[in-house]
Formats: sequence, structure tokens, C-alpha cells
Amino acid sequence: MTSPSAIAAAPDRAVLLIDCPDQKGLVARVAGLLYQQGANILHADQHQDHELGLFFMRVEWSLNGVDGQSIPTFLAAFEPLAAQLQMRWQISTLKQRPRVALFCSQYLHCIADLLHRASAGELACDIAVIISNHREVEKLAAFHTIRFEYIPVTPATRAEAEAQQLALLQELNVELVVLARYMQILTETFVARYPAAIINVHHSFLPAFIGARPYHAAHARGVKLIGATSHYVTSVLDDGPIIEQDVARISHRDQVEDLVARGRDLERIVLSRAVRWHLERRILCYGNKTVVFD
Amino acid sequence: MTSPSAIAAAPDRAVLLIDCPDQKGLVARVAGLLYQQGANILHADQHQDHELGLFFMRVEWSLNGVDGQSIPTFLAAFEPLAAQLQMRWQISTLKQRPRVALFCSQYLHCIADLLHRASAGELACDIAVIISNHREVEKLAAFHTIRFEYIPVTPATRAEAEAQQLALLQELNVELVVLARYMQILTETFVARYPAAIINVHHSFLPAFIGARPYHAAHARGVKLIGATSHYVTSVLDDGPIIEQDVARISHRDQVEDLVARGRDLERIVLSRAVRWHLERRILCYGNKTVVFD
Amino acid sequence: MTSPSAIAAAPDRAVLLIDCPDQKGLVARVAGLLYQQGANILHADQHQDHELGLFFMRVEWSLNGVDGQSIPTFLAAFEPLAAQLQMRWQISTLKQRPRVALFCSQYLHCIADLLHRASAGELACDIAVIISNHREVEKLAAFHTIRFEYIPVTPATRAEAEAQQLALLQELNVELVVLARYMQILTETFVARYPAAIINVHHSFLPAFIGARPYHAAHARGVKLIGATSHYVTSVLDDGPIIEQDVARISHRDQVEDLVARGRDLERIVLSRAVRWHLERRILCYGNKTVVFD
Amino acid sequence: MTSPSAIAAAPDRAVLLIDCPDQKGLVARVAGLLYQQGANILHADQHQDHELGLFFMRVEWSLNGVDGQSIPTFLAAFEPLAAQLQMRWQISTLKQRPRVALFCSQYLHCIADLLHRASAGELACDIAVIISNHREVEKLAAFHTIRFEYIPVTPATRAEAEAQQLALLQELNVELVVLARYMQILTETFVARYPAAIINVHHSFLPAFIGARPYHAAHARGVKLIGATSHYVTSVLDDGPIIEQDVARISHRDQVEDLVARGRDLERIVLSRAVRWHLERRILCYGNKTVVFD
Repeated sequence: MTSPSAIAAAPDRAVLLIDCPDQKGLVARVAGLLYQQGANILHADQHQDHELGLFFMRVEWSLNGVDGQSIPTFLAAFEPLAAQLQMRWQISTLKQRPRVALFCSQYLHCIADLLHRASAGELACDIAVIISNHREVEKLAAFHTIRFEYIPVTPATRAEAEAQQLALLQELNVELVVLARYMQILTETFVARYPAAIINVHHSFLPAFIGARPYHAAHARGVKLIGATSHYVTSVLDDGPIIEQDVARISHRDQVEDLVARGRDLERIVLSRAVRWHLERRILCYGNKTVVFD
Repeated sequence: MTSPSAIAAAPDRAVLLIDCPDQKGLVARVAGLLYQQGANILHADQHQDHELGLFFMRVEWSLNGVDGQSIPTFLAAFEPLAAQLQMRWQISTLKQRPRVALFCSQYLHCIADLLHRASAGELACDIAVIISNHREVEKLAAFHTIRFEYIPVTPATRAEAEAQQLALLQELNVELVVLARYMQILTETFVARYPAAIINVHHSFLPAFIGARPYHAAHARGVKLIGATSHYVTSVLDDGPIIEQDVARISHRDQVEDLVARGRDLERIVLSRAVRWHLERRILCYGNKTVVFD
Repeated sequence: MTSPSAIAAAPDRAVLLIDCPDQKGLVARVAGLLYQQGANILHADQHQDHELGLFFMRVEWSLNGVDGQSIPTFLAAFEPLAAQLQMRWQISTLKQRPRVALFCSQYLHCIADLLHRASAGELACDIAVIISNHREVEKLAAFHTIRFEYIPVTPATRAEAEAQQLALLQELNVELVVLARYMQILTETFVARYPAAIINVHHSFLPAFIGARPYHAAHARGVKLIGATSHYVTSVLDDGPIIEQDVARISHRDQVEDLVARGRDLERIVLSRAVRWHLERRILCYGNKTVVFD
Repeated sequence: MTSPSAIAAAPDRAVLLIDCPDQKGLVARVAGLLYQQGANILHADQHQDHELGLFFMRVEWSLNGVDGQSIPTFLAAFEPLAAQLQMRWQISTLKQRPRVALFCSQYLHCIADLLHRASAGELACDIAVIISNHREVEKLAAFHTIRFEYIPVTPATRAEAEAQQLALLQELNVELVVLARYMQILTETFVARYPAAIINVHHSFLPAFIGARPYHAAHARGVKLIGATSHYVTSVLDDGPIIEQDVARISHRDQVEDLVARGRDLERIVLSRAVRWHLERRILCYGNKTVVFD
């Protein structure tokens, strides 16, 4: 386990994510550029979607203690190449800890899990705020000394509540919103503000059992496995790019409440993996899918 | 592995399957009756659906070499009780090998797997016939010395083809029809003749991706796991009681053809389990679900 | 999720666990006795080990609100039968919440998980004390308002430390000890005081990688799956009856620290399942194995 | 599914596997060289073992229909670089179908599975011969029109039998030996002739239950999951580099024969995956481990 202090002491790393139209020589040119600059590549991974003619790449290299210096040098050389090859790209260093907002409602298993992982150093982020339309999480927020904002939501006050949430996220420079069993549907306005930056967990194996009460639906259908799915939120309910899924075996003996209990473990796992991979800049979205570099 | 000859030599066993309205004393009365008759119970399992007020039981006992004799004795005592308690029940002995028809089309992985398992003694049945609308399986049928019937199907000849199939099944006393990737949809007329006795494999994690080309649909949706489902066929497409499901992890690297290849292993496994459990009289259907006693 | 208050309000249930030499009529006689007494059986499950000639049974029935009354009535009739049939048995009601002691060292993921589950009503027990040879857990204990005892252990002070632990357990009427990544080996003296009542989690797929640093050993061997095992503690290290195991896929990309991180999720899951099953009286030990009724 | 004829018609691909001491610029130099030659890279994957300072790479590129021509051109440029960077490497084209010998004894589930997969086009190889110390497989070999050699083995005749086997393998230009449940232990002499080119399946989750009768050992230990492992054979029994492992859940209800039956499905899957990955040149051995590029 990497403790927060170990992270602070560790030499920093740069991560570059690229997607662009596929063509010959992409790996050679990016790797060549890094080699010319003396970069020590620690991990490199690429993927080609031959059907769509797309190329994706993730490169991670050591910053050798010269933190904050080699990135601009790299960019000076990289930007012309990126423009020429029509690359969409993002670069960051692993020490830049993204600022995260956690949303939840009355069920606390996912948020308790995320908070424990963050405090144990498993999630390289700063949790700026916990926002809930319920008060159950307040004590937990206090234990972790994280700011808590209670923002109730009713159909009548939804617009106002979201405005308040968005203002808070902006004020706190939040880059990633995690819906840890937040039981409200965000409006298109909200979603549009955080493209590929809102992660939700849905308690079914999507696309099966979209919408409310998926465990009840799974029980009614008599499935033999239940699942959970973490995904980026888009304007279509439960339809965004899937990041991770997992399943557990059930039997005729399991009632809805057993499914709910088994499912909690799945939800925790698929959500925490999605958050960790996002924070480690392992995920690229394209169309309605994700590339997850492992 | 139990070889066919080992089965022949083994002492026989009776299996009783019961479902009825739940009430006090059901286990006591059935077990008591068997005890009075000196039966040696080898396995007993029961299940209550508290929500629907239903009771399910499977009891397996030794026939002690007095094959064919103790069943009538048992029934003389059991039938009045069963009538009184409104039981639906079926009794059979494990030596009564059900007669099975295998249907397939051009893909042979499932049927090749079932034939290998049957020949290795894993499936306690007699395969009476292989029926296909293609000729690819003919050589395999010959290798296993199983009768092969080529019955082509077109929209225009469907009714006639099914009539021919049904006549054959009746002639051969077939009790179980297994659709081992048979790519034709059976009519309601056919399905009605074999209630809870037609097992199909669908190459998705139902209820996701019902209908044609589920691997293409799964690829398009960007799921991270693919699945396969075996189920009893009802008149609604891909909607019958689910018997078994399994999944395999995929990634962004997997193209549709990779999903198809991974999926073949899942299909083989969920179909062969379903057939085996059916033959061992482990499955009870109720509503649109199954109880599978393990 | 069943909240603690829901448990308090729920009608109580009796659970009877039996193991004895197998013979005809055991199910009939136990079920018959309960039927005579008007018990409403909610779940009944039995298992026969044909090889060893042993019979195991778990019966759960409703106490109909007449809490504390029907148990003695039942026992008056049951005890002579049990003696006659050489049964070992234990009876309890689900409202009798066992008193549990949690032991841990510096790694908190397992204990944090158990505490969250207990507070969410997933574990029907009263956590009487947390004992650790480290102070890391102190804050967490305070948050859950559970008594914390810091008992350091060195080779020189082991005997004394265990004496102190045992005195505490006795004083607090502890019935179950859970070693939630407690990194000290208990002496035979300690283990003998809690037969089949100390649950440990080992961070490997036992019997592979017994002893210290199993993730390092797994990495060195180049396995493709890592595992975790929960088991009852006996006097032989990592050799007690296995309760639950689970595995996760790894690849050549995973370093030891990745195995450690992946493994934490496995450890949490196999340990929490074992504790829950023990509390629900689903486990019977025999020889060096467990029967886990689901 | 790619049929054999589809493979024949498909444009060919080159696969280069490299391992060497890690240093800066390796990706850049290999990718740069391919780019200069106009190669269209279809897949590239690399791995660094930071602990051991090793670099591994697999590159797959299109041969554009100029089959057999671009490889020498590539090598003329690559070989000096490879020498300079101390690379161990191998290059092949996917149309070069390796010649394979299958060994088995009396259990046919693995070999039947491999033969079905080969005939269905899942395994890009030519099966040159089936060798067995039993005659059970003879009929199956005939069905697939593959040469069958019956070579009985006793302790007294082992040396002679192996000499006969080795002569046959040499005569038939066999490059890969697959032990599909071959129940004889190969001598060091045999193993030394096919380094990293003999694949075995062991019916346990190695390193648990090395040696004979692993299902019996697993049953005796009371494990809750059983496993199977495919690995390269080395001179130490069941100790070679692991290629693939998988597990299945069992319960107290499962007797040894149930473990054997469940295990057969695991054995088929882990063995067929290992063979496929080997044939697709996805595996690199180092130390006693494998890198498996997916």
C-alpha cells in the first residue's frame, strides 16, 4: 500500500493520453520524441480500433525529480506533432491530485468504502466535499474531516439544488464527481458541465435492468448472476460509457434482500476501481465506450 | 468419471420432485413416509418461496437393487398424501435414461461438446437423434453412431419442417429437446408440445441483448463482461425460465470475433450444465423461474 | 439492508445445528418432532457425508413471537432423541447476538470493513472489544464507540499478553474471536480456549503459500490468480478448517504491491462472509473441514 | 470463427517477440525501424520488469500480401540493432503454422477439446501426430484423420519409449508438444529437447497440490475452490512457468468424483488457452514466469 506520505516523497511521473486517427508511425513518433528528450518511459500502452480507424495511447514516464520542468519542454516539442497528427491529448503528473466531490444519499456502503480507500492511500485524490440529499453521511464526513454539504432535492427544487451544487463544485475546483449511490438523476445541464468526469455506479449488469429497483427486476426475471456497473454519466440514463462491471452468483434461495446485500460488495468494487483508474489517467472515452489501460 | 458401464452396474436411485402450496409439516410427512417404507435417503433438499407461499422438494433415495419394485409401493402410500396436499410431483429412477433430441445449425461447438460428454458418461441420457437444418454435423453424428436427420427450414416451409420434426420426436419417444445453437425460432405450436422440456442456449447474459447478434450488440454497447444463458424455451423469445448463466471478462482489445470465440466456451458450459441438471432431475420450474437443487 | 432496529422488531427464529452418525430416518424424526410441536420451519438443509457415514442438519424455524418459550419445550422433546441418536447439537435464536472480539494489527482494511458492516446491520453481533498490538485502529474504534485495548506483543511478553487478552475475553463474555489481519501467531493455549470460534483471514489461496509474505511468494511463483482464505484457527498454522476462499486474476504487469492491493478486496470479502455465516449459525466443522449451509 | 480457409486467404502478419535488458529508447528504436520500412503495426505491446531491469515486447504488423519478402528486409535492418541492444528475439509469420504433437493417456476430454478447436479453426497449427500410452484415443484420431502412435510406457521401457517418441517428433518436425492429460512423467532428457515448448495441464491450482491425485488432496483439505493450471514443463515436476489458471467453486456437497467432473471443464479451458496463446506467439518465458501479451 502506498501511503500518502510515500506518494509525496516519490519521484513524480508524467502521464500522456492520446487519441487520434490511426496512421503508420504513431508509436514511433511519440516514443521517438520522448527518447530524444531523454525521458525514461515506465509504461506505454496503445490500442488501435481497426474498425473505426482510431489510435489510443497512454505513456507514463519518470520526471526524475525535475518536477514541473520537463513537462513544458516536452510540450514544446509535442504540440506541433499533436496538431499535425490531429491528436486529442491530455497530460498530467501523478502528483497533481485531482479534486473530487462525492455525492451520496442514504446508503453509505460505497462512500464509506471510498473514504476508507482514500485515507489508506489507495486513491490519489483530494476529496474536496461530500454532498448529500440526506444527513446519514454527516458523521462519516466529520470522522474523515471532509466538508459536508446537505443539499436536499425535490422535483420542485431540483434546478436550484443543482445550481447550488455546481456553484460549490466550481468554487472548490472539483474535477471529478463520483455518484456513490446518489439516488437523484442529474439534469442534462449538470451532466454537460462535467463530460467524462462524472462516475456513477448502477446496481445491475448494464444494459440489463436499466432504471429503478434493478435488484427487484433481477429477482423477478430469475437470473442466476447479479451484477454492478460503473460508468461515466451522460444525458441518457444508465447509458454512458461503461468503465467496469462485475457479477456474483445467486440462487433460487436468494430473496431480493439477499441480492441487495450481495450487490453491495459488487457496487463497492466496480465503483472504487473506476475511480482509481480515472485518477491514474487510465481511461479514454470514445463514442460510447472506454479504453481502460491496465 | 462415471462410465456408462458403471452406471449400468450401479444400484438404482429414485428421485422425487415436488412442488405445492407451503404449509407446516411437509418435510416431516414426506420424510416420514419414506422412513416408514425403509427408504435410505441419499439426498434431500427443499426450498420455500415465502413470498409466493410455495414449497419445493427433491428427494433421492436408494432402490437397493430391488429395481422397479419399491416405486409402486412408495406411490401407493404417497399418492393419497400428494392429493391431499395439492402436490404436483414427478418421480423417476436415475436408470430411466431420458431420450434426447439435439438440434443444431452450422456451428458445432455446443453439439460437439454435448456428444463428447454423453460418450464419456457425463450425461445420463440416450441421444435418439440429431436434427439440423444444415449438413455440417452429419459427420460428427456418424462418428457417434447417432441418427442424423437433415430438415431444412425456410419461412415458406417452416410449418412443414416442424411437423416433420415433431413426428420424428414422437416416433422416437423423445422427452427432452436441446437446442445446441439451433438458429431457427420454434413456433408456439412446437413449444407447446414440450413444456419445460426444450433447453436453449442464448449467447448473451439475459435479459441483456435479447434476439439476434448479441455479441455484436455487446460490442457496440462496450460491456466489460460477456455472458451466455441456458433456459427453457417458452413462446416468448429468449424469455423462458433461466437455468444457468456464466460470464467472461473482455476488454477494449476484443473485437466482435474475439467475443464470439470467448463466448463459445461460455455457451458450452452453461448448456451442458443445464442439460445435466435436467437429466438428474434437479430443476423445477415455477412462474418464469427455476429452482436448481445442487 | 436489515437495519439494527428492524432486527429488534423482527419475530425471532430458532436455529438448530446437528451432526451425528448417519442412519435412516434422521430427517423424518427431527422434522416430525418439530411438526408435532407446531413449529413453522423456514429453512431446513441437511448433508450426508457418505464416505464417513456422517449426517449434518440445520433447521431454522419461527418462534412466532413466543420468544424464549418454545425453545425449552422443544428441548424437552428433542434431548432424549438426540441422546439416542448420538447427536452433537447446538441451538440458538437469531436474537441472541454473539459477543465478538476483533483483533487487528496495523492494516485496517479488514477491520474497517467489518465495523462498517456491523454498523449497517449486516452482521448480527455485538462487538465487545477491539484488541490490537498497534494503535492505528484506535481512532476507528472511537468512531464506532467500541472499547479499544492496546496490548503490545513481543516474543518475551507473548504469554503475558495472551493472558491479558484471554482475561478480557472472559470478562466480556466473548464467544467469537475474529483475527482481522492480526499479525501475531496465537499459542496453542489460546487456540484451545476457543475451538471453532476463532476466524482468521490468510492472504493466499490455501494450502498454497502458507506462512509469512504470501503475496511475495505468489509473485515469485508467477501465478495468474491470487487468493484469500478465511478459516477457523487450529494449533497448526494456516491449517484449520477452510470457511471461504476467493480469487482474483492478475497478470505479469502486477508487481507485489498490486497483488497486495488486489488482495485487500479479497481478504475483506472472504473474512466478512465467514463472520456472517458463523453468526447466522450456518457452519459446522467436522474433521478439518466445514459444512456451510447456504 | 476464423475457418482454416479464411486463414489461408487472409493477408499474412509478422510477429516479433523481444526480451532484453531494459534501457531508454527501446520502443522508439524498434517502432522507428518498422516505421522507416513502411510497416503497418497492427498490435504492439511491451512490458518492463522494473525489479529485474528487463524489457519485453511483442509487435505484430501486416505483411501486405508481400508474403515472405518483407521479413528478410526487416531482419537486415533489425539484426544489428538487436545485437547492439543484447536482444533475444524470435520472428515468425502467423501463416507459419507450428507443427504440434498431442500426448494423452486414457482420459480424452482435453484432447477431444483441442481436436475440436483445431478443426474449427481456433488453433492455428498442424497436428502432426497423437501419441498415447493407451488406445482409447485411436478412434478419435482416425475421425480427425491424424496419425496415431501407440507407445506404451513402463518403468522398464521408459527410456526406450521416450527415444521412440523423440525420434518421431524429430521426423515430423514437431515444434510444440502438448500434454493433454498425459499421465507419464517425462525425463530430463526429453524436457531438455523442448525448452518452453512442452505445455502441460495440471489438475490443481498450482502450487497447491503438486503431484498425483490433486482432486483427492483438494477434497481432503476441504478447499472451497478447485483449480487447474497450464504451464511449460521443466525438469522439476509441476514447477514450470505458469501460463494460465482458472478455478471453480465447490461446496461440502461435492465428492471427489464431482471435483473430477468440475475440474475437467477447467482443464480444457486452461490448456486450450495456453496452446492458443503459444501458437499466436503471445508468450515469453523469463526466469520461471511468463509474460502473456493479450
